[in-house]
Amino acid sequence: MKMMEEKILSCGQIYPGNILKVTDFLNHQIDTDFLMEMGKYVAEKFSDRKIDKVLTIEASGIAYAMAIAAYLHVPVVFAKKHLSINMDSDNYSAKVHSYTHGNDNIISVSRKYLSKGENVLIADDFLATGIAISGLMEIVNSAEARTVGVTVAIEKSFQGGGDKLREKGIKVLSLAIIDSMTDCDIKFKKQDS
Amino acid sequence: MKMMEEKILSCGQIYPGNILKVTDFLNHQIDTDFLMEMGKYVAEKFSDRKIDKVLTIEASGIAYAMAIAAYLHVPVVFAKKHLSINMDSDNYSAKVHSYTHGNDNIISVSRKYLSKGENVLIADDFLATGIAISGLMEIVNSAEARTVGVTVAIEKSFQGGGDKLREKGIKVLSLAIIDSMTDCDIKFKKQDS
Repeated sequence: MKMMEEKILSCGQIYPGNILKVTDFLNHQIDTDFLMEMGKYVAEKFSDRKIDKVLTIEASGIAYAMAIAAYLHVPVVFAKKHLSINMDSDNYSAKVHSYTHGNDNIISVSRKYLSKGENVLIADDFLATGIAISGLMEIVNSAEARTVGVTVAIEKSFQGGGDKLREKGIKVLSLAIIDSMTDCDIKFKKQDS
Repeated sequence: MKMMEEKILSCGQIYPGNILKVTDFLNHQIDTDFLMEMGKYVAEKFSDRKIDKVLTIEASGIAYAMAIAAYLHVPVVFAKKHLSINMDSDNYSAKVHSYTHGNDNIISVSRKYLSKGENVLIADDFLATGIAISGLMEIVNSAEARTVGVTVAIEKSFQGGGDKLREKGIKVLSLAIIDSMTDCDIKFKKQDS
């Protein structure tokens, strides 16, 4: 998606360790009109599939998921993050490692909000190694629901997570795919519009 | 707002200590269509004022703020929560006590995202004692910006925070105002529609 690539080039900031910060429009300040545009685009790209819910993780996935769900007219469910293991019978949980913060988080979703047979679109801001998305898919599986696709605002393809999902036959829609990144340059993977 | 009162009565759950959980439609699962309706309503109610930004706190304020900002066509800024004091020159920060979790949080907003003279609408899911909203207002003041109003999905008036703000002359729009709450009953304050 050309608009997303342009936004990353004009507003993204690169930090050591392949960290791309998009706090100007996605992760701290949210460019609402831009995000709603993205939501509309994603909803159209998944119009061939039945989607019952959009699943994301707090906090930075919520805005992107909301924008998509507003056009799909379905609820958003956001997994909650905990630092301690708090597995209980009321929740589906999974352990995920935070690449940015270098620690483990437990993410969980109440059993009330995911049901057997539901069709779930997983949405998040970033897809790098794919650990967070895998955690969400584990939760969807635990609920005996179905992951009908994955969408992220930004994929860092050089960290491999996106292709691992595609190899499993999962439809992955990334609004921008970064092939390589240096302190002063970002190269995107060419995608069909 | 009648719709919000009905939603609380049908989907809210009361826990000991005057805790009202609205995880069915606001704080864990988000009823997107309903929230967008609320956003439209709030945007109309503030159409008499110039608003440059909607300010909220992660994570549960984001969806409500997004819905409002989508109709106002302005950015959302969400304050980040930290457990430790991490005051630095890049951020405006304030200490807020969490009524639900019984601990203190530091909330902060990057100086990049609030500017002198900007007109800020503060939005959050709940208004009880008003400590979180006061923290956000402190941040707005630090930036020499202006709080043009406060809006929350649910006010618990018996905890006094809303009226303290109104006494200061601040326009407060609460979509539902709870006057009293017992384990099996919720009484709302009558409001002009």
